[in-house]
Amino acid sequence: MARRLRAKLAGSGTFLLNLMSSPGSGKTTTILATIEALRDQVRIGVLEADIDSKVDAELLAARGIAALQLRTGGFCHLDASMVEKGLDGMLLDELDAVIIENVGNLVCPAEFDTGAINNAMILSVPEGDDKPLKYPLMFSVCDVLLINKVDYMELSDFNMDALRERVSKLNPRIEIFEVSAKTGQGMEAWCAWLSAQIKDFTERGT
Amino acid sequence: MARRLRAKLAGSGTFLLNLMSSPGSGKTTTILATIEALRDQVRIGVLEADIDSKVDAELLAARGIAALQLRTGGFCHLDASMVEKGLDGMLLDELDAVIIENVGNLVCPAEFDTGAINNAMILSVPEGDDKPLKYPLMFSVCDVLLINKVDYMELSDFNMDALRERVSKLNPRIEIFEVSAKTGQGMEAWCAWLSAQIKDFTERGT
Repeated sequence: MARRLRAKLAGSGTFLLNLMSSPGSGKTTTILATIEALRDQVRIGVLEADIDSKVDAELLAARGIAALQLRTGGFCHLDASMVEKGLDGMLLDELDAVIIENVGNLVCPAEFDTGAINNAMILSVPEGDDKPLKYPLMFSVCDVLLINKVDYMELSDFNMDALRERVSKLNPRIEIFEVSAKTGQGMEAWCAWLSAQIKDFTERGT
Repeated sequence: MARRLRAKLAGSGTFLLNLMSSPGSGKTTTILATIEALRDQVRIGVLEADIDSKVDAELLAARGIAALQLRTGGFCHLDASMVEKGLDGMLLDELDAVIIENVGNLVCPAEFDTGAINNAMILSVPEGDDKPLKYPLMFSVCDVLLINKVDYMELSDFNMDALRERVSKLNPRIEIFEVSAKTGQGMEAWCAWLSAQIKDFTERGT
């Protein structure tokens, strides 16, 4: 089903990014800042997967962003069939990319192929630098890691070198960006990377 | 199975607390600080449930705390049968209480009765005050909520009043403590509450 969805996305030339993280690591803020930074370059929509609220989708819609809320009904993850149903409700022809805001969870979502072209994850500084030791699968399945809330570094004992070494051991090819979605720090490099991924895909895909 | 486990705990006079939270909200630090604060009053052991590491159990054991590591093998939660197996490996006669450090996850663990006497959860300030809207079941099934990392309040836009109102709507009887396990702020009130719960149970139980 994930493979079928990827073939469909290639047909419509729509890049799909699956964004995963713990609750409260800053997925929605990062998505908002990313879409606003890239607004003149690529058209990005959002598929929201919250357990039981429409807060995020409403926030995005209020900013004029194409957003669709999936109700997971208590589910702890998304799979390709849920994603496909969600995408059926969006006007893909008018979008270069869709970002899936997956359920806040470092465990279950890592086990399911959503059909996305790239998997991304956020680890926020207050969560600690030991997370790759505890949730190795998540770090292994992702193409890119955003280390968010670097503005908390001064209050934290987070060891960036130790974190990078732990992540590289699990996944040597992962791209890592240190950002603060709130202050904007580091967001330019991440947005440039994402924009290049999207353009590369839409050109190959269609 | 959870009922059978609770009967067994009443027999041995061992209080069991199931502690749940997102990854990185400070479960291990809170457990360590709590056990050290209550060391002269009650004997507390720890059942650790990490996905794939022994880091926490080794840390606890190094401080002379009775700790047993459950390997969940990628599982996203604990159930009563896993807890019972873990407790079978501990010397319950020498313990007044056991704290389960559940898998870092706000979704799945809320759905399983572990056999614990009380459910507790940690929400840390950097995760944000909107979590009760997104993970309502977790807030509904808990007897006590620790709002941890209050030392991050100054850097955060966390609204404590809004958080308390959202939690109370879901669960009017929940006990709430604002703490920083790192700095010690607020830990005295939480430890006094826990100690009273343990003493009440061990007196009734045996």
